[in-house]
Amino acid sequence: MNGPSLALRQRSLGDPSAEFPLFPPLTRGCPKTSTAELAYPVEVDYDYAKVDRTLFEQQPGPDIARWSPLLPPLDAPTLGEGGTPLIEFGDVYIKDESRNPTWSHKDRLNRVTVSAAVACGAPGVVVASSGNHGASAAAYAARAGLPAIVLTGDAPPAVQEFVRSYGAKVVSVPVDKRWPLLRQVVDELGYHPVSNQTVTHTGHPFGPEGYKTIAYELFLQLGTVPAAVFSPTGYAELLYGVWKGFAELRLLGVTDRTPRMFSCETAAGGPHAKALAAGLPAAIVEIGPTDAYGVACPVGGHRGVVAVRDSGGEAVLVTDEDLRKAQRDLARAGLWQELSGAAGLAGRRRLRRDFDGPVVCIATSSGFKDVGVGGERYDVLTDPTLDDLLP
Amino acid sequence: MNGPSLALRQRSLGDPSAEFPLFPPLTRGCPKTSTAELAYPVEVDYDYAKVDRTLFEQQPGPDIARWSPLLPPLDAPTLGEGGTPLIEFGDVYIKDESRNPTWSHKDRLNRVTVSAAVACGAPGVVVASSGNHGASAAAYAARAGLPAIVLTGDAPPAVQEFVRSYGAKVVSVPVDKRWPLLRQVVDELGYHPVSNQTVTHTGHPFGPEGYKTIAYELFLQLGTVPAAVFSPTGYAELLYGVWKGFAELRLLGVTDRTPRMFSCETAAGGPHAKALAAGLPAAIVEIGPTDAYGVACPVGGHRGVVAVRDSGGEAVLVTDEDLRKAQRDLARAGLWQELSGAAGLAGRRRLRRDFDGPVVCIATSSGFKDVGVGGERYDVLTDPTLDDLLP
Repeated sequence: MNGPSLALRQRSLGDPSAEFPLFPPLTRGCPKTSTAELAYPVEVDYDYAKVDRTLFEQQPGPDIARWSPLLPPLDAPTLGEGGTPLIEFGDVYIKDESRNPTWSHKDRLNRVTVSAAVACGAPGVVVASSGNHGASAAAYAARAGLPAIVLTGDAPPAVQEFVRSYGAKVVSVPVDKRWPLLRQVVDELGYHPVSNQTVTHTGHPFGPEGYKTIAYELFLQLGTVPAAVFSPTGYAELLYGVWKGFAELRLLGVTDRTPRMFSCETAAGGPHAKALAAGLPAAIVEIGPTDAYGVACPVGGHRGVVAVRDSGGEAVLVTDEDLRKAQRDLARAGLWQELSGAAGLAGRRRLRRDFDGPVVCIATSSGFKDVGVGGERYDVLTDPTLDDLLP
Repeated sequence: MNGPSLALRQRSLGDPSAEFPLFPPLTRGCPKTSTAELAYPVEVDYDYAKVDRTLFEQQPGPDIARWSPLLPPLDAPTLGEGGTPLIEFGDVYIKDESRNPTWSHKDRLNRVTVSAAVACGAPGVVVASSGNHGASAAAYAARAGLPAIVLTGDAPPAVQEFVRSYGAKVVSVPVDKRWPLLRQVVDELGYHPVSNQTVTHTGHPFGPEGYKTIAYELFLQLGTVPAAVFSPTGYAELLYGVWKGFAELRLLGVTDRTPRMFSCETAAGGPHAKALAAGLPAAIVEIGPTDAYGVACPVGGHRGVVAVRDSGGEAVLVTDEDLRKAQRDLARAGLWQELSGAAGLAGRRRLRRDFDGPVVCIATSSGFKDVGVGGERYDVLTDPTLDDLLP
């Protein structure tokens, strides 16, 4: 059913005629179309004519290697990423990505990016991240036997411990020092970068390929293509990856339609909302106060613009109050998500519109990772009675 | 493939000829064989002759309803429990139960026990638990639309917030007040208890049925029966459930052998080790100092004794030092487990013995739930250099 990777080359999102060999991964964006103000990412192109469509007759499950023909070579071992459940919640479906190896969607990306590091023979992996991405990269690097350096910021204390648990070298540095230091680690130590290095976001060219597997799973879990997908959006690698997966299903003739993609961004920032409103390929914003640190990205990228534009979707801005309400309601149905992880549901609620088919909200991460978790102390009732237990 | 429950009745573990109707669940143990000093649990018996063995030709995945013929009726909705990956780790396999809806194995049990509450028409669910069990019961009760009362103790602050997130009434009470209060909630409010109420542990009679699904999954994931299973053991519901699942596979003729079951208990207590050494049906111990609060149970039960005895296994005591080493090594391979959750691997390492076939260590829960997580503060390096990033 699965088989070797059919990845052929890298291709620019700035100009699809600009093609590059598959290796080395262009971790500083497209060298032909990027400018000093705007970086275009590249993506991976495949030999689609060779894809056996029985690939899409399997049942989803852990380990994205089941989709290997449509992924770059997976040289790093699995931690059992993917195969996450789809849970009914009122009139929408929740794709619960907190069920991944490090309890966020980032594991799908890091299986692919750490594989690239292994394939390149890199002596280590480096990542700048305030939380989930850093922990996930550290976990996959550890699993692959590669040292990792994680440049982190002021993540919540429990998340700091989470990132550190996997044995990486973790250093908290000021935000403005993270990217120069990352470049230095790449240039001087030869470590493979699995996070962004460019003026507008490009990230790792292979990263969104891992997220495509969410689209494949959704198609199999629903037995159809959803009408709309609402995704928590920071740099929009997730949004773009899911979009590309559905676009491939249509390209391969497995399906005949694609969903509208909704970029659910924090109202404290929202670079893709800004870019779309202004008709720009990508934008940069100031970030105001928000607890949704997982999606509070000042630097947007071209991928999110492409996914929204080509799918007929929209960017939706959600406030922390919207997020808290969505987070609370998900928990009250048994799904405790990180505040940022509830952005898909919050976005769906803010956009008052009917859809002609299933609506999926991606929920990205466990509630354990939030700001303030573990900060409150609860008293022990020394002499409790039944009255103390009533609402 | 799946179909209605084939559960017929409850049967005593104290005397297999003592049978009871399937409902109501005997949540205070076997009324015929229990004494003032020793309570025997009951288990669920099925119409095994009616089981369609193609049930065991499916692929594992989320939602244990795929095993419904061999489970009590599942009247509570799923959160997508089960279908967890099996990860190679050196010469053993790790069954990563931190990949469940509330990031521990307890979700398999609570899908079943909260279903019993729904089937009984109970007005709510009550549970005494210091952590994972309480959170999981709260999540499944919330999902089923039932109120829940959780009597908790001095769980770590992040775990307190985790338990509270699902909207249950959570009250911290001294350990010696938990069980009297639980009984009062059951007797006066009619809430359905999903934790233990007896002098030696019996718990919910349906609980271990949920854990059987781990055995079914392991058989399908390995393509064979493991030679040995090492399980973190507190009350031994997990150990017994996995054992029963394998025993059923043999009974049904799906397999011709069963694994040896190893009860991995904290050296600070270890009631099943004590009972087995003394030839008792169950034992109670004092608990010494340990951070492995998830398995530090003073009250043992008969189930653990049966699982070890009938499978030809052993009880293995592990120190906190053993656990920390196992936890660290799992994390260094990308699997961050709770200290108690690493007891399976710690136990396997302590028992120096070769096995003629695959060895599985169950890992039960995410590292986020440990004592002390989030308690440490890490300084931000204001002027970092490359030297700060080297090991």
